[in-house]
Amino acid sequence: MPSGAQTLLHSLTSAGVTVCFTNPGTSEMHFVAALDGAPSMRAVLTLFEGVASAAADGYARMADRPAATLLHLGCGLGNALANLHNARKARTPLLNIVGDHASFHAAHDTPLQSDIDTVARNVSPWVRRCRDAASLAGDVRDALDAALGPPGQVATLILPADVSWSECAAAVFAASPRTPPQVADETLQAIARALRAARRPALLLGGRALREPALGAAARIAAHTGARLLGEVFPARMQRGAGLPAVERLAYLAEFARLQLADIDHLVLVDATPPASFFAYPGQDSRLVADGCALHALAAPQHDVHDALQRLCLLLGAQDVAPALQPALRPPRPRGRLTAHKVCKAVGHLLPPRAVIVDEAQTSGVMLPHYTAGAPPHDLLTLTGGAIGMGLPLALGAAVACPQRPVIALVGDGAAMYTLQALWSMAREGAHVIVVVLDNRSYAILNLELQRVGAARAGARARAQFDLSEPALDFVALARGLGVPGVCARSVEAFIDAFEHALATPGPHLIDAVVQPAIAGLRLRLLPRVLQSLQGLPRGVALGIKRRLAP
Amino acid sequence: MPSGAQTLLHSLTSAGVTVCFTNPGTSEMHFVAALDGAPSMRAVLTLFEGVASAAADGYARMADRPAATLLHLGCGLGNALANLHNARKARTPLLNIVGDHASFHAAHDTPLQSDIDTVARNVSPWVRRCRDAASLAGDVRDALDAALGPPGQVATLILPADVSWSECAAAVFAASPRTPPQVADETLQAIARALRAARRPALLLGGRALREPALGAAARIAAHTGARLLGEVFPARMQRGAGLPAVERLAYLAEFARLQLADIDHLVLVDATPPASFFAYPGQDSRLVADGCALHALAAPQHDVHDALQRLCLLLGAQDVAPALQPALRPPRPRGRLTAHKVCKAVGHLLPPRAVIVDEAQTSGVMLPHYTAGAPPHDLLTLTGGAIGMGLPLALGAAVACPQRPVIALVGDGAAMYTLQALWSMAREGAHVIVVVLDNRSYAILNLELQRVGAARAGARARAQFDLSEPALDFVALARGLGVPGVCARSVEAFIDAFEHALATPGPHLIDAVVQPAIAGLRLRLLPRVLQSLQGLPRGVALGIKRRLAP
Repeated sequence: MPSGAQTLLHSLTSAGVTVCFTNPGTSEMHFVAALDGAPSMRAVLTLFEGVASAAADGYARMADRPAATLLHLGCGLGNALANLHNARKARTPLLNIVGDHASFHAAHDTPLQSDIDTVARNVSPWVRRCRDAASLAGDVRDALDAALGPPGQVATLILPADVSWSECAAAVFAASPRTPPQVADETLQAIARALRAARRPALLLGGRALREPALGAAARIAAHTGARLLGEVFPARMQRGAGLPAVERLAYLAEFARLQLADIDHLVLVDATPPASFFAYPGQDSRLVADGCALHALAAPQHDVHDALQRLCLLLGAQDVAPALQPALRPPRPRGRLTAHKVCKAVGHLLPPRAVIVDEAQTSGVMLPHYTAGAPPHDLLTLTGGAIGMGLPLALGAAVACPQRPVIALVGDGAAMYTLQALWSMAREGAHVIVVVLDNRSYAILNLELQRVGAARAGARARAQFDLSEPALDFVALARGLGVPGVCARSVEAFIDAFEHALATPGPHLIDAVVQPAIAGLRLRLLPRVLQSLQGLPRGVALGIKRRLAP
Repeated sequence: MPSGAQTLLHSLTSAGVTVCFTNPGTSEMHFVAALDGAPSMRAVLTLFEGVASAAADGYARMADRPAATLLHLGCGLGNALANLHNARKARTPLLNIVGDHASFHAAHDTPLQSDIDTVARNVSPWVRRCRDAASLAGDVRDALDAALGPPGQVATLILPADVSWSECAAAVFAASPRTPPQVADETLQAIARALRAARRPALLLGGRALREPALGAAARIAAHTGARLLGEVFPARMQRGAGLPAVERLAYLAEFARLQLADIDHLVLVDATPPASFFAYPGQDSRLVADGCALHALAAPQHDVHDALQRLCLLLGAQDVAPALQPALRPPRPRGRLTAHKVCKAVGHLLPPRAVIVDEAQTSGVMLPHYTAGAPPHDLLTLTGGAIGMGLPLALGAAVACPQRPVIALVGDGAAMYTLQALWSMAREGAHVIVVVLDNRSYAILNLELQRVGAARAGARARAQFDLSEPALDFVALARGLGVPGVCARSVEAFIDAFEHALATPGPHLIDAVVQPAIAGLRLRLLPRVLQSLQGLPRGVALGIKRRLAP
């Protein structure tokens, strides 16, 4: 008779879960041993659990089916926690398998004993501790159903070692994802009325609404009603580029977002939450919509968003309207001294078709949406939960899901250092990921935030907390240490050479793009360009922002 | 009037908390800004929160006073969690300052919102969310009292951003650690009777009992009663070396520990828990003492352990007995091909006076206790909670606490990769840490554990989960990338040269000691030497182990 671990693997692969990102320990040894008998399960070893969790997130965002993680007790889960938080906010279907001590061992309070269940609940609405081998297959089915949703979510199955090693009848089942509920007709009618009556309406798209075919339906509604198409600040996955509807993402900086939203009288939330500032600031309201703006919830994450938009389209008579599509348009080849915005420009200039972009570039990536807007269609994955350190492993997972597509990860130097171990797994898996480290040798965003929270007069000891130059991180050496070829680019030409070489050569690559901290002059120099990137913003509003931020 | 953040820093430094290991974000910006006005607070920036938490642990283990951490919301705490688990198991006094959104912001469920309190409770018996600036100083005092214990523990103060930026009257207070309770006379009398009547008694020392002056009192009791002196498997801090009482640590492998304990009829627990196997194994009891062995709890972690041992000494009339002390004895200089055990031998041969050894070398470090037993007195810090990835940052913290003492961190290659970012902070702080990576290119311990849990017939796909050779990690490049000079040693001579150079040269160093996986031949070749290291084990028992493990 098979072991519990064998039955678990058999159940997973039968249900279509064929990738597992692992960092196993002793309590997971039976799972590991069972891999030999489960050739359709691809086990991707990681050196740190936060790599495993973000990779599973990236995989599911691109594959539209869950991956599993294999984690070692509460501490392994703890290491995975921050990126599971990002997955939770992204509503990613994801299945954690967390090994635990054998049930009879818990009473001894040995070193690795901890309260796994409680930690899991923090990121995982569905948590179950498998009681015995007889219930294992049912537990796996329930876990996968929970993960798939809709909406997708993190599900965590805690697997005591004695369940893994017990004999267990094999079970096979098909995954049975629930059909998402439809939005009620009355809701659609009320929103149709509001859109017809509105003077300056907008749709705020989040979650699934930022992907085809929902995106097209939203664009037809926008074209028909004159509504603006806005996107949430940090989408899990957004389809964009030439020929797709152009969506204006809300800005991270509340000052900007408030101005983007200033004149909207009706805002329709499509799988999106009411706009709120990312952080709180002294004396400022966290809500971003103007007083008097009416909010309408068209669809929540559990709904069939495309169905809701399509029916709203029909109700409005917008089904045959030609939507406004993004024209093909690339920035010219940049030249001269390398800067963060020239890196973004170069990426826009060279972006290959069907690329996946992972953006964790923080301040240095502020121009990326602008310069890639008219590039060939691509997917954009962003930092959904604000837990920095997602970019590299998310790119690993996306590359495992889409081996035929180039994955381009733009990460800040500070962000790269949380989960740099992902490079090793990229090398091991031969993942075609082009890692661009926007290396400004600082936590530049914090310097900006220090001003924004009103703690302005920072001296040397405060500023030292943002400074990554002493010692300078050598990303080329770090990449080599992890088995990834790297080059350092200090000029636009060197960057473009390296980027073109990386696109043409399979496997992972790292480009250390040495740029100036964008912060010192951010208010005066960069912001006007940021304004350009707020597509569709009326000129008067743009001037208002300029006056406000660059006096 | 000062801000909440300024009052917090003033309160901390007044209470003697003068080191904070940080990885701040926006919600901690007022704390960061306040550093300029608090010159007696040393803020040590880390690139990852798991470095901050283990460094705070290492600092307190050596300084005997708590450090603080500064963490960014629930996700920062999540990244710190695994090493906070180790600190919890070590009963380390440690104060987490976890920044949170301003209280009015929580309702918006923004990306970084999570249940900080619940995650904190997993590792921190004391958790409080500061309600307003008026209560802040009292909260800090209560947090420090909780952290100091006894026993020491992790305390977590959640600090909403609006408390940090509010005006707040300054408060100064002295820390008021509680006096530990004394063990009752009746307990001492009962144990004295048991020791007098016992045929083969032993004391099992843990926690504070492994440090002077408690250690000396325990050794006098042992000499007087004929009891063996055993030590817990993974001590937080153990004082050992020539001239100190020799303590036989229990083995990690349950098979060994069971044999060490086999003939003991009375086991006195001194700040230690009943011996239990680290992991559970099919068909094996997790308890390690023999049936019929009587357990006696002399002192628990909250007690004054030295007082209890001293009074027991007096009761037994052992106060003037000469304890058995470890003679000065170093292994000879090793020669030839580098192996893990020759690395341990070389460390024993060269160990300077007053060193601090951090041992996270797993299988490769199995001979370390043996070869350093008679070296000059030193402190040994180990992996108390089994959450791998503690070694490098623990060494950072120990070096910050003890700038005049060399810190030697022996870490496995797999272990090093969880929190390698610690190297950067070592370089930034000029910490004199000699990092020795025992680089066997595998998770060797898992190969061993795979056999032990009975999942023996591992094929290529299972074994790939332990293999770190594809690609090979280049630790010299990784060290250089993080600002630390590194050398690769493939011979004993190269290792000794590098080790001597590192001892003589301030600042951090990394030595990549390339060794064979000790696993392939562990059962046959290494185990007999392990047996030698089980000091005091009767010859018959040793032969029994040999027959059992190396048939």
